[in-house]
Amino acid sequence: MKVFIAGMDGYLGWALAVYLGSRGHDIYGVDAFLRRKWVNDEGESHSISPIAAMPERLQAFQEQIGRPAWFREGNLCDFEFIRSALAEASPDAIIHFGEQPSAPFSMIDREHCILTHENNMFGTLNVLYAMAECCPSAHLIKLGTMGEYGTPNVDIPEGFFTIEYKGRTDTLPFPRQAGSWYHQTKVHDTNNIMFACKVWGLRSTDLMQGVVYGTRLSEMKDDQRLLTRLDIDGLFGTAVNRFCAEAVIGHPLTPYGAGGQTRSFINIRDSMRCIELVLENPAANGEYRVFNQFTEVLSVVQLAEKVKAAGEKANLEVTVHPIRNPRVESESHYYNPDNSKFRALGLDPVHMDDALPGMLVDLSRWRDRIESKKNCLIPKVEWRESAPGVPVGHAGSGA
Amino acid sequence: MKVFIAGMDGYLGWALAVYLGSRGHDIYGVDAFLRRKWVNDEGESHSISPIAAMPERLQAFQEQIGRPAWFREGNLCDFEFIRSALAEASPDAIIHFGEQPSAPFSMIDREHCILTHENNMFGTLNVLYAMAECCPSAHLIKLGTMGEYGTPNVDIPEGFFTIEYKGRTDTLPFPRQAGSWYHQTKVHDTNNIMFACKVWGLRSTDLMQGVVYGTRLSEMKDDQRLLTRLDIDGLFGTAVNRFCAEAVIGHPLTPYGAGGQTRSFINIRDSMRCIELVLENPAANGEYRVFNQFTEVLSVVQLAEKVKAAGEKANLEVTVHPIRNPRVESESHYYNPDNSKFRALGLDPVHMDDALPGMLVDLSRWRDRIESKKNCLIPKVEWRESAPGVPVGHAGSGA
Repeated sequence: MKVFIAGMDGYLGWALAVYLGSRGHDIYGVDAFLRRKWVNDEGESHSISPIAAMPERLQAFQEQIGRPAWFREGNLCDFEFIRSALAEASPDAIIHFGEQPSAPFSMIDREHCILTHENNMFGTLNVLYAMAECCPSAHLIKLGTMGEYGTPNVDIPEGFFTIEYKGRTDTLPFPRQAGSWYHQTKVHDTNNIMFACKVWGLRSTDLMQGVVYGTRLSEMKDDQRLLTRLDIDGLFGTAVNRFCAEAVIGHPLTPYGAGGQTRSFINIRDSMRCIELVLENPAANGEYRVFNQFTEVLSVVQLAEKVKAAGEKANLEVTVHPIRNPRVESESHYYNPDNSKFRALGLDPVHMDDALPGMLVDLSRWRDRIESKKNCLIPKVEWRESAPGVPVGHAGSGA
Repeated sequence: MKVFIAGMDGYLGWALAVYLGSRGHDIYGVDAFLRRKWVNDEGESHSISPIAAMPERLQAFQEQIGRPAWFREGNLCDFEFIRSALAEASPDAIIHFGEQPSAPFSMIDREHCILTHENNMFGTLNVLYAMAECCPSAHLIKLGTMGEYGTPNVDIPEGFFTIEYKGRTDTLPFPRQAGSWYHQTKVHDTNNIMFACKVWGLRSTDLMQGVVYGTRLSEMKDDQRLLTRLDIDGLFGTAVNRFCAEAVIGHPLTPYGAGGQTRSFINIRDSMRCIELVLENPAANGEYRVFNQFTEVLSVVQLAEKVKAAGEKANLEVTVHPIRNPRVESESHYYNPDNSKFRALGLDPVHMDDALPGMLVDLSRWRDRIESKKNCLIPKVEWRESAPGVPVGHAGSGA
């Protein structure tokens, strides 16, 4: 299958190129390298895994997989770029990872809020218009986030739910209550893609993904040039990867606040397998559908306990030191999302407990690279203070 | 009260300045005059009411009301502009009408889709950041649209609904299913404003307004310089105003398709009164709330019948000639929205049947101005063809 990956240089994008390339798919990709720049300039950090530049990555891809991957450097916000790339590639499927993925980055200030809206929404709108023009039958696989749903006091279905209200029944999009500008842009994308499918007959699978963790795929073999990036800084790092990095250098694990925040998680191998399952089982023409892409549900406290236990088995001394929660979010709530669609397609998930030991081994090899950036581990962006003039603690009823 | 009107030169903005100014409020306003430009350049039309330029409007305001209105020309997308305007005005309430309000305009092509997103969303985000910085206690009254809800098969509440789902209960935002890029931007705004209230403790009333109709307010007296604009072209005209204009020049009324599309409507006088009621009964600090702002529910066929009946009483010969529906929308559906909040506040609504005769009189005075633009009455923008490459009739399951 001809697979087009928008954001091919990212954590998931590069891993997917290697994963699907290893399985015989033809890989086409684009990236503007903004993630590398943002982690360096704004996160004041670097990828903990020592990643290669794209030319070396492509060289290693060719050597290890035996076929080249097609790549063009460019920005989805440049319509002519994405239009000509899709026209040239004429893909069967487009996997859209090409967005600014950090909640704290989006909350730094007004400029980062607008940048995140512009980058994510206009990139997605350009992909939709370019698809409609160049490959209207392609299957758009879009990366959303479980964070779109927030933490409602009812079960979370997969995108839509059938309800009775005042004696009548309908199937409606499940309400979204996102917790950062970044998460809001994913909600906006969801609404826009749903509309494009309805009006233009495009087809799309929107993946509400949990927090991804993991250091690499077996398909990367021992070729360091095939490694994907891994971030642990306060802007681009995510919970499991960051806790493991903290454990490796003897830094206390840093859950936010009471730690009762419950989220969904997925290993990077399962994330890849989910994309493969969706490729093999595409949406129908004109269909917009949502899959929840996660395998485990844990509170932040449980997460810290798991990493602590795995660390101690690996002879690491691990402490837990909660820090003030920079976000506006409930620290104790109901959370029961559905993930039966991927289970029905046969996903056989990795368990976090089985994945953590290998992650700690990989991260121990990169200990010096973590150590040199340990000042970046603690988040600096405060949700409440993200607009000048709003005093801390001024937050409203939702806080 | 110090009232700041974003979009003060528009159909509702100017009318509100006159209405609230006449009731003793201090009026502050901004506008970039984009609506005048868009109607001229893209709609190839003009305001059917012969409106004055802003300097004359302000002169007439001062003469008739006895106090000046404060006005600055500028764009909400220019953050420094809106920040300094709000800092100078230091308003008690901000009424945000400053958006691109046309669904067909947003569907012309990719550029108009992006322009509508940029203009509406970034303008609103700038207002939120500027409020947070300059007047965090001000009450933001934002113009949304009943079109955010689409046409679900259940009753439409006012923004939120309490449901039972799988044995548990929560109060959640009612799902939005908007029918154009313009309507989508209003949904995106809704989500963003709700989030800003939660995180920064701002307060806002989001008005889901029905289709507004009416040619003027009694507060405009006989001073032609106080008239507000009125559009009838295929881009910026709306149903009732356009049907009345058609009736006046003997053009057939032009409902789209089967005409079973049912929508909510409100007279411009009631629209003004609703804003006044909300000003007098503001949201609490940190509160985000939604009011549905309409007074009557009618199908397009019923609307045409009403205008036909009123026209015949006025000795006009009125015919009805349905045209192909350029939109992707259901032409027969359930529709039962709630508007009890404004009724509870004491809104005593105008009935359309009572308003139509006066509208026909006004429009008859402007007959030549309608006649000269009658080629602009018929919509030219097709939803399905709005992306190049998508063949007509290719629309998906939602069509």
